[in-house]
Formats: sequence, structure tokens, C-alpha cells
Amino acid sequence: MTEVLLEITDADLDAIEIGAAILGTGGGGNPYIGKLRCREELKKGHRIPVIPLDQLADDALIVSLGGIGAPVVGVEKIEEGRECLRALRAIEKELGVTVDALISAEIGGANSMEPMLTAAQAGLPVVDGDGMGRAFPEMQMCTWSIYGHREVPSALADEKGNIVVIRDTPDDLWLERIARHVVVAMGAAAGLAIQPMRGDFVRSAAIPGTITRVRNLGRAVLDAHANNADPVQTVIEQECGRLLMTAKIVDLERHLKGGFAVGHLALEGFGRFSGNVGRIDLQNEFLVFHLNGQVQVCTPDLIVVLDSDSGLAITTEMLRYGQRVAVVGLPSHALMRTPEALEVVGPAAFGYPEIPFTPIEVD
Amino acid sequence: MTEVLLEITDADLDAIEIGAAILGTGGGGNPYIGKLRCREELKKGHRIPVIPLDQLADDALIVSLGGIGAPVVGVEKIEEGRECLRALRAIEKELGVTVDALISAEIGGANSMEPMLTAAQAGLPVVDGDGMGRAFPEMQMCTWSIYGHREVPSALADEKGNIVVIRDTPDDLWLERIARHVVVAMGAAAGLAIQPMRGDFVRSAAIPGTITRVRNLGRAVLDAHANNADPVQTVIEQECGRLLMTAKIVDLERHLKGGFAVGHLALEGFGRFSGNVGRIDLQNEFLVFHLNGQVQVCTPDLIVVLDSDSGLAITTEMLRYGQRVAVVGLPSHALMRTPEALEVVGPAAFGYPEIPFTPIEVD
Repeated sequence: MTEVLLEITDADLDAIEIGAAILGTGGGGNPYIGKLRCREELKKGHRIPVIPLDQLADDALIVSLGGIGAPVVGVEKIEEGRECLRALRAIEKELGVTVDALISAEIGGANSMEPMLTAAQAGLPVVDGDGMGRAFPEMQMCTWSIYGHREVPSALADEKGNIVVIRDTPDDLWLERIARHVVVAMGAAAGLAIQPMRGDFVRSAAIPGTITRVRNLGRAVLDAHANNADPVQTVIEQECGRLLMTAKIVDLERHLKGGFAVGHLALEGFGRFSGNVGRIDLQNEFLVFHLNGQVQVCTPDLIVVLDSDSGLAITTEMLRYGQRVAVVGLPSHALMRTPEALEVVGPAAFGYPEIPFTPIEVD
Repeated sequence: MTEVLLEITDADLDAIEIGAAILGTGGGGNPYIGKLRCREELKKGHRIPVIPLDQLADDALIVSLGGIGAPVVGVEKIEEGRECLRALRAIEKELGVTVDALISAEIGGANSMEPMLTAAQAGLPVVDGDGMGRAFPEMQMCTWSIYGHREVPSALADEKGNIVVIRDTPDDLWLERIARHVVVAMGAAAGLAIQPMRGDFVRSAAIPGTITRVRNLGRAVLDAHANNADPVQTVIEQECGRLLMTAKIVDLERHLKGGFAVGHLALEGFGRFSGNVGRIDLQNEFLVFHLNGQVQVCTPDLIVVLDSDSGLAITTEMLRYGQRVAVVGLPSHALMRTPEALEVVGPAAFGYPEIPFTPIEVD
């Protein structure tokens, strides 16, 4: 269909795992199992070609897909590995079409790997981009939905042979609600594929270049490890971010609410942040960072919690009392900062109507 | 397709309402709203032709459909009225077929009316029979499922425009589980249509003649009212049943568990049952009747609680402390008493493995 930008290698998978976990901002699930499955596919001789976003044909059919479920379930319930492929086949059958390429709904976390895995299984390319540029907990928080693509019909498939097609809904919020209930019935983890999008739409609505971006980010962290450089500083430079705090986790409250991990963590600064207190509110992802009682960064900008030594991301379910972390803020993509986007992914959408969104670059 | 047995009239609807509520054995929801909707359709000049079971062509396509949800929700949330029609259209579209006739999954309670309502809307006939001969809480408790028809794909539709197709499941228990979750997302009430059945299968698997049966039962009760005869005795004679107890409700425990009303009622006999104590265990439907500590009747045989004066059925959600009732036992159909059926609808299937099924006729 178009030139191949890169062919994913084993080394790329290791780098993508690291970079995608960082953009997961605490949520999105762990990419580790997906990486192992992709590696298996490469061993079998299957390929994962990545194609550039800007060369998609107008009428190419692109399916956005990924795993859906509570990340905390992913810790114990390992995917069988073909859930997303089954969901893809179900949506092709539903519409009587053949899909040309896959794209990630969410580059942050486990869903960085799912389209690559399905691409290897189905013999399709993956588009270099995604629908969030990070992780978010719900389907309507995707640029596809924000910029006018109706995600129905969508298909869900699990490892047991259950296949459900959500054929029509009044809007994507209803899709999210019904899909979430179906996933719970399926055991809290499933693959989901949405109605195919046209190439011209994807070119305008996708966050561009995010596969190469997480690959480069991960590579930079690995290089820092090899060269005894500061990996946290590397992440900040690579992503044009800002160090918000180096701190110890001194309190942690986290509970499951409607399938989401909701809570906050309290931080006590060390190093040059000694004497400062921080707080992060979370709903699967880290949503709001307060320093000494003042909001510093909020969604859709990225709040990333890194191990202060290794620079590797710590996900919400892996947070522990006493951990020494570096909190880093990264700017979100312009497509996530428009009025239409902020209505869906801004602070008010997550229950913080009192917090105005101020881009991290403006201090 | 075949000769019409009867054309449902206004008077038939009143009689069916009474008869269907009695066979509801406490569950199945109230047929009243459905009756009013059917009446509206008749007023518009639409017809509800009933065709006999034994004359279905082998290759006729019959869809079993009905409402799904918690009966207690039906008390407050009134159906919009075209949910089952939308589910029917969704299943026709899914398979690319045109359906020849409709049949009730469950003659007891509200689902007696749903296929008649949809028939009037779609210009189709209704088959004189159903899949339970009573009410039961779950889809796999239908003769269709018991005798080998796979109910997937099934389609669910609600009043808001949501349409979900459950395309494949490992078995009908998974279908029930997923459908139940979808219904909860839809607001606890939806229309459901299953994969069409062939006429030859329906002839062998349906409980025969149940529309005319509930119509005749309701008529007999109305006649008893008009003639100052004993309506409870009338029900017993009409249905070859047995009076189990005349009693006052002296205790009532009922709570929602997984969308079902679960509990029991305690009875203190009066009249010739004075000095006796009774107990009915319920899960939406009345499942086990004990007299003085001994099991007298159990599922799949029918335990019916009637107002002791009017002979009208009292549903689980309408039970009240102090009510004077007649408890009547009715034999279930032979299709519900085979080993295959008892595995799904016998006492053990409802959590009473210690109770053997003994037909009510054997005392």
C-alpha cells in the first residue's frame, strides 16, 4: 500500500516496552506480555512492518484495536494472545470489508503492543501513530471519537470464544458503557476492534509518529543505562518535559471503583525538592499533580512517575509505600488540547471542574 | 404459511394476561403493560394471528424473543415498546434471513405478550406454544437450549438505540452471562431475539398450545368471577393442579442478588390448613414449597401463589406481609421433566442438590 518506515526488531520491542510504559502515565497496562508475544511472532518469521501516517491512501481502511479491561486484572490474567485478531475478524465479517492496516488506540502501556501483535498474526502493517499519544481509561477519549469517527460497530472477543458486536449506540459514551459491561462478563479482559476508519481521516486525527517516538524514547533510556548517564534527565530531554519533583511515596490510597483504580499518592520531596510536598490524583492514569497544594500539571498533559534511579515507569498498580520516584511532566499533543478534546480529556471530564487546563509549557 | 388458529382479540388479551401471570409462578414480570401495547396495535388495525405448532413447515424460520431484565425494574421502567422488534430486525440483518413466525421464549408473565406485540408490529404470526410452559429466570432454561438449539447469535436492543449482537459463545450459559451484563448496561431492560429455529425443531421442542392454554385459563377465571364460582378451584380444575395450602403470609424475606429477587416466604395455614406451616423458596420464581418442613412440590413443577379470593396471581415483587393466599401446584410439561431438562431446571440447578424432583402427581 505504501513504503515501510521500519520493520520492528527484537531490540525495537525492548525499547518500545520502555517508552510505551512511560507514556502510559501510570495506566494502560503493562506492555511486557505483549512484547513476549510479539517476539514469538518474529521468531516464527512473521513481520511487523510500520508504515508512515502521512502516506496513507485516502480510502485505505484502518482499524484501531487494543485490549480492554482493568489493568490490575492483567497482572494475574494473561491474555491467550489472539483476542484482538478475533475482534478484527469479527469487525471485518460484520461489515464485509478487508482491512488494510492497524493502528493503536493508545500508545501508552500494553496497547502499544496489541496492534503490532495482531499485525504479525494477520500479515498487516501498523501505522506509526495512535489515538491518544498516552493512555486514557475510556474509549471515547480517543482522537478517533473526539474528531468525529463513530466507533460502532465495534467487536469484542475473548479467549474463550465469546464474540460480541456492539452494532449501534446513540453515542460513543454508550459504546464505552456497554463494552465495559461486556468485558466484565468476559472476565475483565478482551480484545476490541472498532469500525474501520478511512486513511484521510486517520492522517488528520492520529497523534503522529508515536511508535517511532516510544521506540526512540526507550532506546535513549537504554543508552543512558549503558553510558551511566541520568535516565530521568534523558526522558526529560527526549520528550521536552520538565522535572516536577524527586520524592518518596509517603502515602498511597488506591481502590477499585467501577473497574478503575482510583485514589491518590502523597509525596515528600528529596534532593532539591527537599521540604516540598506533592500529591498525584489518579484514575488508572495520573491525572493531576499538586506541588505544595498548587496544581502544577493536569490532564491531558502527561504526569509520569519514574523510578528515580532507573528512569523506568512505575504503573499505578505497582506503586508502593516508600518508593523513591521522579515525577516528570510531558506536554500532550496539540490534538489533545483543542476545546473539543479538552471537553473529553480535560480535568473537568475527570471530575475536576475547578481546575483549568494550563499547558505545562506555561508556568 | 399455514392456517390461522385464532386471531387475538381485546378479550383474549385480558384472559391471556390473567393466565400468563398464573403460569409465571411469581416471576416473568407483569404482562399488563404488554397487554396495553398489544391493545394499541389492535386499535391501529394490526393483527395478531396465532398459528398451530403442529402445522409449521419443516424449514419455516421461527424466532423466539422476549424482554430480558429484572422484573422489579419493569415495575418502574416502562418499555418503549419496540425493543423486541429492533432485536428481531437485528438478528434478521445479522444472518441475512427473513423470519416466518415468532414464538415466546416464556409464556409465564410479561413474555407472553412480547411476541404478540412484535407480531402485530412486524406483520408476522405467533406460534401457539413457548419454550418453558411457565417462567424461569435464565435463557438456557428454555427448551430451545435444552434440546440442542444454539441460541447464538442473539441480538439485544433497548429503547435508546443500542443494538448488541452476541455472535458466538462457547455455550448458552456464556450467552446468558454476557446478555445479562449487556442488559444491566442498557438500564436493566431490553428486548432479546435468538438465532432463528427451523419449524421441525420447534414442533418437537416447544411446549405446545400455551397461548390458547393461558387464554382458556384466564377466561375460566373471569367466568368464575362472573358466576360467583370459586376462582382458585377453577384454576386447579382447568390446569389439573392441586391445592397445596390456603394461608397467610407471616414472614417475607426478599433481596436482590445478581439482578434476581432471592428469598423465601413463610405461611401460616387457615381453613382446612389451619395449624399447618408452609414455606416457599424463591429466585424470581417460586421454586420449592415445603409443608410442615417437608418438600411437597419443586421446580420444574409450578408453584403458584394466588389471591385466595380472586384467584389472580401474586408475583414475587407484589408479595406483602399479611396477604391471604392460596398456594397451588401444577404439573410441568413432560419436556421439562426429562433428564436433560432436569439438569438445567431441576432443584439441583437452583442450588438444592438435596431435593430430588418428584412429580406433583406422585404424592
